[in-house]
Amino acid sequence: MSAKVYGLGVGPGDPELITVKALRILRAAPVVAYPAPEDGASFARAIVARWLVPAQIELAIRVPMASARFPAQAVYDRAAAEIAEHVAAGRDVAVLCQGDPFFYGSFMYLFARLAARVPVEIVPGVSSLGACAAAARWPLAARDDSLLVLPASLESDDLARRLAAADSVAIIKLGRHFARVREMLDRLGLAANARYIERASTASERVLPLDAVDPASVPYFSMILLHRRGAAWS
Amino acid sequence: MSAKVYGLGVGPGDPELITVKALRILRAAPVVAYPAPEDGASFARAIVARWLVPAQIELAIRVPMASARFPAQAVYDRAAAEIAEHVAAGRDVAVLCQGDPFFYGSFMYLFARLAARVPVEIVPGVSSLGACAAAARWPLAARDDSLLVLPASLESDDLARRLAAADSVAIIKLGRHFARVREMLDRLGLAANARYIERASTASERVLPLDAVDPASVPYFSMILLHRRGAAWS
Repeated sequence: MSAKVYGLGVGPGDPELITVKALRILRAAPVVAYPAPEDGASFARAIVARWLVPAQIELAIRVPMASARFPAQAVYDRAAAEIAEHVAAGRDVAVLCQGDPFFYGSFMYLFARLAARVPVEIVPGVSSLGACAAAARWPLAARDDSLLVLPASLESDDLARRLAAADSVAIIKLGRHFARVREMLDRLGLAANARYIERASTASERVLPLDAVDPASVPYFSMILLHRRGAAWS
Repeated sequence: MSAKVYGLGVGPGDPELITVKALRILRAAPVVAYPAPEDGASFARAIVARWLVPAQIELAIRVPMASARFPAQAVYDRAAAEIAEHVAAGRDVAVLCQGDPFFYGSFMYLFARLAARVPVEIVPGVSSLGACAAAARWPLAARDDSLLVLPASLESDDLARRLAAADSVAIIKLGRHFARVREMLDRLGLAANARYIERASTASERVLPLDAVDPASVPYFSMILLHRRGAAWS
């Protein structure tokens, strides 16, 4: 058996929302890699901290947050090379991905660099979408409903135009965009059909109506869930 | 502690894709309920069969499949009443939900009936969306991409109009709609940017280009993943 890279979905924040499969692979992997800010702790690593094994080699992929430098090509180039070396030496590498690896995860930048060079397996995880819906007790979609996920960084007019295409909408990665998004939803008369959720499934999870949110306090890991019409399941 | 109903996401099919949390709750629950066809085995139960405990009371919610009778109000009314009785008697009830409870899951019909009567907790799970993306090695969305989920039962013109609103699209629950959906994607010139996935994460998983699919063999548990433009992560 040749060694492998695993894109390991570790779930949205609650350490217990890792899958049995991801936990098994994580604990067996000699090398564990994860994204981290330039300074400070990695959220993905924090999610699985209790499951790590002392002998594991850790590889922090420190990605500059400044959007001007995004997607930090050189950082991913270097990390991919380092991961490929471990695999060539026969060591499996578990790359930790908060949520699901292919749902707005940075793992895809490594995947693009590694998939043609070494064996890569993707282990799906519980996404922030499911975690936010559970936290807000907010069914996302049923039957013939369409469901649209929109990053809050899109311009307001673009958001408004796109969300007309779906029955149910998630506006993700709110951060500093919150006030502008709320204003857009108010203008469309949709704010009352929405919920705000931050840090779902963690100890600091909060669920609020939109008008109770202080825009200055909105983290990146937050979203608005919205139904454009009556719920299909009621 | 009063008893509770758990809407338990058990993942897309691979028994190992259940979360540690769902597994803990499942094994501790005195009552396990699950959707099932009128005759035959429950897929949700099959996913967790290896984890069940002999002493557990099982409650099969047998839902007629004929869409004319959907959403089978009387069946859900009766199941909700039975579940509420177990809770009133102090017994936790784990309701098994394949995938994620609030992502096109039938659990929401029970949730609508139970949430005001008894304590209900939702445990999110790995959805078919994440499982299909992993199987097809197909990143769903990155950065500013929008991601739209469309049920194949929508009319072709409606599908075509809606999917223009997103960069990345999942057309789910294909079944007998496959040929019509493929024809629509061919007409739009999008079929080459798409992958077909069925029964993701199970032993009978298949990933195919659209022109290799026999429309007569397409199951309900299948989807098409599609990028409308070049991938944002490459």
